[in-house]
Order: sequence, then C-alpha cells, then structure tokens
Amino acid sequence: MTRWYENIVLDEVFDLGEHTFGEDEIIRFARAYDPQYFHTDPALAAHSHFGGLVASGWHTAAVGHRKMVDALEAEEALLRGRGEEPGISGPSPGGSKIEFPAPVRPGDTIRYQLSVYDKRHSNSLPGWGLLFNRIAAVNQRGEQVYLSEFVGFSKLRDYRPDLRRRVLLALIKLPLIGPLLKRAA
Amino acid sequence: MTRWYENIVLDEVFDLGEHTFGEDEIIRFARAYDPQYFHTDPALAAHSHFGGLVASGWHTAAVGHRKMVDALEAEEALLRGRGEEPGISGPSPGGSKIEFPAPVRPGDTIRYQLSVYDKRHSNSLPGWGLLFNRIAAVNQRGEQVYLSEFVGFSKLRDYRPDLRRRVLLALIKLPLIGPLLKRAA
Repeated sequence: MTRWYENIVLDEVFDLGEHTFGEDEIIRFARAYDPQYFHTDPALAAHSHFGGLVASGWHTAAVGHRKMVDALEAEEALLRGRGEEPGISGPSPGGSKIEFPAPVRPGDTIRYQLSVYDKRHSNSLPGWGLLFNRIAAVNQRGEQVYLSEFVGFSKLRDYRPDLRRRVLLALIKLPLIGPLLKRAA
Repeated sequence: MTRWYENIVLDEVFDLGEHTFGEDEIIRFARAYDPQYFHTDPALAAHSHFGGLVASGWHTAAVGHRKMVDALEAEEALLRGRGEEPGISGPSPGGSKIEFPAPVRPGDTIRYQLSVYDKRHSNSLPGWGLLFNRIAAVNQRGEQVYLSEFVGFSKLRDYRPDLRRRVLLALIKLPLIGPLLKRAA
C-alpha cells in the first residue's frame, strides 16, 4: 500500500482496473502451471463440468496481483509528483482466504478491487504494521469470480520505540552491559 | 486426487517431486504477474529487505500446483495401466491458507509434498466429497518456503442417493407431478 499505515481507512475501495482474459493467454498460463484439459483444450473442455474452457484460478489470482502492483506504483508516482512521500510496503507472509466462486471464461472482462479490512501493529517487527488486504473481482455481468485475503507489512510513519525499548537500545551501546543485553532486545 | 474419496488416508504424504528455480524463470514470471523490483532486478533487489532476488510467492504457488497436476496425472496413468479405475476430481472452490515462511532464491531446489488433512461429504453436491488438501514445500536446506491449504471436490465411489432423494427422482419422471417437484429436488 502506498499510503502510510496511519492513513489507511478500513474498507475504502481502491479500483485496480480491469483485464479481459483472452483464450490464448488462458491456455498459455495453464500449459505452464495448470495443464488440466479444461484449462488447455477448448474442444475437450466442452465436455467438462465447466462446459467450456476456463482460466486456472492461479491465473485469475496472478492477474489480480499484477493489477494491484501496477495500481500501487501508479499511485506512488502520483504522490511523488505532488511532492508527498509515499508509505512503505514490506513483504507479505501469506493469506487466509482464496476463493473462486465462478469461472473466468475466454473474453470475460474482470474488474479487480482492493480494500483493507483490518490493520494492527506488528508484534514481531517493531516500527511496522500489518494490513489485512482483500482483493475482490467481478466479471462483466457483476458475478464475483475471485476473492482473496492476505496480509502485508506496512511501515509506521509515526513509530517511536516505547520506554522499555529505548532504555534497552541506550544500554546496548555501553561496552560491558551491551553484549549481555543484546539477546533481550 | 486420483484415489477414490473412500480410499483417501488422512495425512498420508504424496511426494510431488522437486523444482529448481532459475533466475531467468523467476524474472519472467514476475515481469508478467508481479513486477516488483525484488522479483525482477537482481542489482536493485540486493538493496531490498530480501538482500537479493526472490521468486514471487505466486510463482512458488503456481509451480507447486503444476507439480501436483503432473504427479496426479502420472498416478492416474499408472492406475489405468494396472486395470484400475482412478477416482474423479472436481473443481476447487478455493483455499483457506497460503503462506511463504521463507523466500525462494535463484538456484534453490524446492520439494513439494501433498497430503489430505481432512475430508467430508459435500452438503451442496450429492455424490461428491470434499478433500482438504495441504501442499508444503521445503528448500534444499530443509527450510519451509511454502504452505497452502485448499479444498477440492472428489467423487464418491460408493454413493447411493438416500430414500427421500430416490423418491423425488422417481416422481420427477411423471409427466404432471415432475415439473412441480423439480424445484424441490
């Protein structure tokens, strides 16, 4: 996220734009990562439970991630253009939900949207917060085709170590006490 | 899963084989789906929190899926070769966990393993069961780099509709009563 942790408003929706899935692209992704016949062979796929070719769920997810990266980079450039300093994102340790309620078929135009549904300070990494992100996507008929929830680290703008940590950091600088304390910090 | 739902033993481990992630391949995937500098630019990545180029988590996940599809197809061919009828997999409605506890770097060899940690009959789709699958992956030093949990439909071999459903199915065949009952079935 390009906003600072402190500025994130829960459930505010960021539009990530849309992507039209071509048949060639669906087949190319599936040949590399998900070569099941209903993702790679239109003729055979007609006899599957989907009744036709559908995109691999991993493809739908990967395109959503790409749309997010592009949108956040564009917003970052916009903020810098205005002379503002964008927030700093960290790595993502993973996610807690990934759903494919309806298939994505060739020619479908999928619109992705990002929101942050929760946030808290990190317990393990002082100075960082955790954002609980949600990406939801619908097709041109408004049917939901994708939902994911995943965690991302986000640097705190207003971080100031607490008293205990500041005392420890000061003591660590002393030549004799420091080495004894480093483990506790 | 190529075994019948009834034959699935919980927590039995299926080895899916290993994959060595090349730098070119990491960059190619990331340019398409996750173009953040620590996935696409080795020189800049050295200054990131990862200290070097790392694979996109979606890449690690997609390769794991590919390994699973390949392994299950191979087992299916093996079973047919023995004159046995393999079980039938359905679509996956999604997952409840996806974790990247450590990064995958160029040259890392990742071993993927599949297990089924739970199963139950489907409430929505008579004749089918749900398998709760887990894919776990470790690098050449035994460090876990990936963990995912996702659901898959699996056809029941020994399914027989219950009495209520059999009566409904019989009544539906009658010309006058059928149309009235179809909604209830």
